[in-house]
Amino acid sequence: MSNTFGNLFKVTTWGESHGYAVGVVIEGCPSGLPLAKEDIQDELNKRRPGKSELSSQRKERDEPLILSGIFDGKTTGMPISIIVKNEDTVSEDYEDIKHILRPGHADYTYWKKYGVRDYRGGGRSSGRETVSRVIAGSIAKKILIKNGIEVVAHVIQIGRIKARRPDFEEIKKNIEKNAVMCADPDAAVLMEEEIINAKNQGDSVGGVVEIICRGAPAGLGEPVFDKLDADLAKALMSIGAVKGVEIGLGFEYKDKFGSKVNDEFFIKNGDIKTRSNNSGGILGGISTGEDIVCRIVVKPTPSISKSQKTVDISEMREKEIVIKGRHDPCICPRICPVAESMVSIVIADHMLLSGVINKKIS
Amino acid sequence: MSNTFGNLFKVTTWGESHGYAVGVVIEGCPSGLPLAKEDIQDELNKRRPGKSELSSQRKERDEPLILSGIFDGKTTGMPISIIVKNEDTVSEDYEDIKHILRPGHADYTYWKKYGVRDYRGGGRSSGRETVSRVIAGSIAKKILIKNGIEVVAHVIQIGRIKARRPDFEEIKKNIEKNAVMCADPDAAVLMEEEIINAKNQGDSVGGVVEIICRGAPAGLGEPVFDKLDADLAKALMSIGAVKGVEIGLGFEYKDKFGSKVNDEFFIKNGDIKTRSNNSGGILGGISTGEDIVCRIVVKPTPSISKSQKTVDISEMREKEIVIKGRHDPCICPRICPVAESMVSIVIADHMLLSGVINKKIS
Amino acid sequence: MSNTFGNLFKVTTWGESHGYAVGVVIEGCPSGLPLAKEDIQDELNKRRPGKSELSSQRKERDEPLILSGIFDGKTTGMPISIIVKNEDTVSEDYEDIKHILRPGHADYTYWKKYGVRDYRGGGRSSGRETVSRVIAGSIAKKILIKNGIEVVAHVIQIGRIKARRPDFEEIKKNIEKNAVMCADPDAAVLMEEEIINAKNQGDSVGGVVEIICRGAPAGLGEPVFDKLDADLAKALMSIGAVKGVEIGLGFEYKDKFGSKVNDEFFIKNGDIKTRSNNSGGILGGISTGEDIVCRIVVKPTPSISKSQKTVDISEMREKEIVIKGRHDPCICPRICPVAESMVSIVIADHMLLSGVINKKIS
Amino acid sequence: MSNTFGNLFKVTTWGESHGYAVGVVIEGCPSGLPLAKEDIQDELNKRRPGKSELSSQRKERDEPLILSGIFDGKTTGMPISIIVKNEDTVSEDYEDIKHILRPGHADYTYWKKYGVRDYRGGGRSSGRETVSRVIAGSIAKKILIKNGIEVVAHVIQIGRIKARRPDFEEIKKNIEKNAVMCADPDAAVLMEEEIINAKNQGDSVGGVVEIICRGAPAGLGEPVFDKLDADLAKALMSIGAVKGVEIGLGFEYKDKFGSKVNDEFFIKNGDIKTRSNNSGGILGGISTGEDIVCRIVVKPTPSISKSQKTVDISEMREKEIVIKGRHDPCICPRICPVAESMVSIVIADHMLLSGVINKKIS
Repeated sequence: MSNTFGNLFKVTTWGESHGYAVGVVIEGCPSGLPLAKEDIQDELNKRRPGKSELSSQRKERDEPLILSGIFDGKTTGMPISIIVKNEDTVSEDYEDIKHILRPGHADYTYWKKYGVRDYRGGGRSSGRETVSRVIAGSIAKKILIKNGIEVVAHVIQIGRIKARRPDFEEIKKNIEKNAVMCADPDAAVLMEEEIINAKNQGDSVGGVVEIICRGAPAGLGEPVFDKLDADLAKALMSIGAVKGVEIGLGFEYKDKFGSKVNDEFFIKNGDIKTRSNNSGGILGGISTGEDIVCRIVVKPTPSISKSQKTVDISEMREKEIVIKGRHDPCICPRICPVAESMVSIVIADHMLLSGVINKKIS
Repeated sequence: MSNTFGNLFKVTTWGESHGYAVGVVIEGCPSGLPLAKEDIQDELNKRRPGKSELSSQRKERDEPLILSGIFDGKTTGMPISIIVKNEDTVSEDYEDIKHILRPGHADYTYWKKYGVRDYRGGGRSSGRETVSRVIAGSIAKKILIKNGIEVVAHVIQIGRIKARRPDFEEIKKNIEKNAVMCADPDAAVLMEEEIINAKNQGDSVGGVVEIICRGAPAGLGEPVFDKLDADLAKALMSIGAVKGVEIGLGFEYKDKFGSKVNDEFFIKNGDIKTRSNNSGGILGGISTGEDIVCRIVVKPTPSISKSQKTVDISEMREKEIVIKGRHDPCICPRICPVAESMVSIVIADHMLLSGVINKKIS
Repeated sequence: MSNTFGNLFKVTTWGESHGYAVGVVIEGCPSGLPLAKEDIQDELNKRRPGKSELSSQRKERDEPLILSGIFDGKTTGMPISIIVKNEDTVSEDYEDIKHILRPGHADYTYWKKYGVRDYRGGGRSSGRETVSRVIAGSIAKKILIKNGIEVVAHVIQIGRIKARRPDFEEIKKNIEKNAVMCADPDAAVLMEEEIINAKNQGDSVGGVVEIICRGAPAGLGEPVFDKLDADLAKALMSIGAVKGVEIGLGFEYKDKFGSKVNDEFFIKNGDIKTRSNNSGGILGGISTGEDIVCRIVVKPTPSISKSQKTVDISEMREKEIVIKGRHDPCICPRICPVAESMVSIVIADHMLLSGVINKKIS
Repeated sequence: MSNTFGNLFKVTTWGESHGYAVGVVIEGCPSGLPLAKEDIQDELNKRRPGKSELSSQRKERDEPLILSGIFDGKTTGMPISIIVKNEDTVSEDYEDIKHILRPGHADYTYWKKYGVRDYRGGGRSSGRETVSRVIAGSIAKKILIKNGIEVVAHVIQIGRIKARRPDFEEIKKNIEKNAVMCADPDAAVLMEEEIINAKNQGDSVGGVVEIICRGAPAGLGEPVFDKLDADLAKALMSIGAVKGVEIGLGFEYKDKFGSKVNDEFFIKNGDIKTRSNNSGGILGGISTGEDIVCRIVVKPTPSISKSQKTVDISEMREKEIVIKGRHDPCICPRICPVAESMVSIVIADHMLLSGVINKKIS
């Protein structure tokens, strides 16, 4: 448990922010799947920092090194081990805060739990750990694409700015056109301002990301505890900074009447479909075949350069802290590929669990 | 997987709504814990239907029969098997809808996944399955109480009515005074009206439940996938009708600035505490020692007596459905003991995982 | 863990020897499998005591009560819960030994581990626990038979008497003709004498059981830890009284040369076969398609009526013990259905893991 | 599953014989444990080939590179990722047998299961995979030593040569004095001859290894499926070439009487002990506190240079094979550190499961 996720498509991650490398072992990937370094690099590039002034200026090539599980360009069914070296690590940034708890960070809880901790850049609790998730996600995505399934994440709110939501094909096209991964071009401009504004004040800001999975067959999900939505909730909530997950209408259900939100069934070309999709593609924990729709709320990055009150644990006394280092004022855009990855991993795992796909890809 | 939840405190549930019984096997409960039938009955009574006009009129005594794992009034460390017979089952209610998909229910997805299904009362996907969760929860709670930990769920919104939130001790006292498990007496009256109103129209209504866990030590939760909040999210999302989970500020984080919501640390009587608790008692997936605060949104019960459009799968043609049977117009009050149970199970499991408690209770 | 076995075909057992009942929850059985009480009863009858003077005179009807997971005579894919009541329990037999450790039994280790224990008839450590295994095995067997796979266990040695081993079909026929489950009629007579002889002296005797699985396809087993033989070893070693497991030639390999025991491949009707089957149908942890052959050694029942030296833990002083109660002088014949069950469970689980069979039985 | 072993002390291995590297991720190691590269190197050196003419002449430095989980020379509780590069790989040796099934090897079964396979040196099914097990074992051993527990494996039979068994302290001393890891100096000489003799004939030979664990506390092991002996059986049977596992008297129990082999209890210095240890330190699946004694049979290495009949799968026709490459004529000595590792991992895991040790090492 703990560093491993999934039942049959199983992902084990390791590595600290300022250690030698981060990496991942992926088990259960069917054999015979073509897999190249570029498949992984493309996804890693999406989460890479330093691409615009909106994100941390840490420069990483994030080049994946595949160590096992591939032979003649194809997966063999054996565990796939991939590492990415940590390159632009400035451990000195962390020397003067090694005993000082950063508010909103995991410093306190790791120290309480383990007694020791790698304080450089947050160590294991750093967002850098998501490199491993994105690598695993890139492989899950390859499996999904082979089965006609797509997963897309886009930013729908940052601070006070909310985005209009276009249709699925437009979302895919538009999010590549701006640095905030927003499918609404007008909102995107305002979101960038909102982030720059926070950054200029030494502050950070939160937001909401939506993930849509199109093409998943009906029948994914296991009653009663491993419901598809339960596994998605765990997968998404396990991402640092995520503090809420909802499916379909989500929290909007709270003041609705059943007669208004039940999704009615009808027949289309011999298939059973629902007229609306308030349930977000999941009923009784099992996929309906409609779009699977999740939303996550992302808290403002706790690393801010404003002065904050906290505690120095070496002397057990209160102290002020001003966090240096290179941080993202809003983590929403960079969480998108991570959220896509986690959803893809869950879907791939449930396709194996349901027997929709098998060990061998012919 | 599937019908089993937990790592060391492990719960396996079974049973259908209109079968012979429902039940649960609980593994990993430390030995030496005093456990009587009454401990379980008390919790079961909280979720029992038929207590007021707000809930289904199905009458069940829900009397637990302990089949194993207890000797001389104490747990032995062996699996505890408990069953509750299904008594007031009216299977006839379901004969004429055996081929008709109820909108918002799991009928369609179970049928697609398994080919066959026990259509009587929803079979395994029925809310009756939560009897097993509450039994397991009642045992988890006994472990928690022995360690000074309390878990309380209360309704904070039903339809348009929102409750004021009093302090923890008042919540515990007030929720027993009304049928809606609301800690705000004024809102409780309005909530009851909101439910009766929906019921009179043959409709149902949604709401929000908050769960607070007080007294849990710092250090519970495992990085990086089995974070305490990730496990809570899965546990709560796995309850039927729950479509969203949030921790602490939750979705309110979306438009906040880091400087306003980071919880600052200070020292109180030699202990490190946080001044605010926006993080809901969890940082980096590990408990801080502050109150753990979760909220879930509950969709309106899909069973309504208003006419709805749907599909008859025996003839593969569209049809109207009017659902008979005895249903809750709002499931929020009865979800409270279930949510308490799931949170208690997660906390007990993580106490074992963290080594805070052990196999033997001395 | 602990009381649960299997990955996708998952078995959770519970219950003590002298409690109300013993039982089992089976998860992961594909939907659509016809299953009747008789299927289970037939297997239970094989392990039932009191059938001859060779076994314990405890009389149990061992009638299974199916509580869930079956609808219209078929499995639904939901957990199958089955219980068997304990009827002929004479708890008084155990009153005077409640503080006295029976040599060779689990009394000491359970007491050290849990502090408390249900001492009546060994409680959870009793052979009665295998009722649950046989129930689960009877369902696994139904899955196997549908796929043309048979599993048969037979006794090949008791005390000094070794059996000749006839071919598979003859084994199946012969073992039903004697009370010792031996396929060699001549050896069977001598084995019965060996057991009666031990019994008359207030003693017990050990032996060896062989389990053959015919018809399993090539490709079952997962590298590198969940090898088919590794899972079989765990499954069989988890049966009380089993102290060794071997596959194929097993311990005979110790003084052999590679050139003499490597199984050479050849082609038969277009299929690849091996000329010999020293490997017992498993290479590199994966089935070859040949017979899977395991052997287990069974220690003499520790309950004997001869006087033995031991310790009284209430007074912490040494004491003599003479064990009363009704015990099997040789457990080998009654272990046969249990061993068949464990092997069947492992094979069914690996068929699901390998994707050879699916969730739905059409 | 599959490439992961253990519940709380969890080991995930990856890598192929002729790929870039092999490696392992270890989860659940308590924080605060001093761990240096040398601790691991010492154990790896024990299994390294090329040390004498008895083993394969493949030359590997087998230098471990620690990538995560260590900070300031101590474990942090985070996953420990370690890799070892493959250096002396001669892939050409395998070009002409890429379509030819080596008898006794996993070539056939991997091909049937996965369709594709890395045929160079056996790929994932190679003994090289055990590098990862030994690394994990070296860390488990550090935990055990801190708790006063030692694990030692020694060769007790090779071919026709059986060793006399001296006491525990002598075993530890003697096995370092010869290349066959035998504690009986006289037998060691004969065993070396037996191996050289097989090698000179282009053949290989089998044997038996015994593993003793001294100092483990009473109470390790979980009823009923995760018995300590069941987990040991799985752990040891999962090692390539192992075809049988026995505990204590093991297969010798087959013709014994209960009165002769039950281990009687007595009191020594206020502790309960057994006079004999036929049960091998385990009763009812739980450790007694006596020495835990296991034995494994190791089949002769299937790679021999004698001509063998087999099948060419590219043309589906029968063919002769003469295996080139550098192979061990007897794998017993090099299996010793692997067997020690697997036993150490099981014991460490059960110490965590039993709560005997905790997450933090103070």
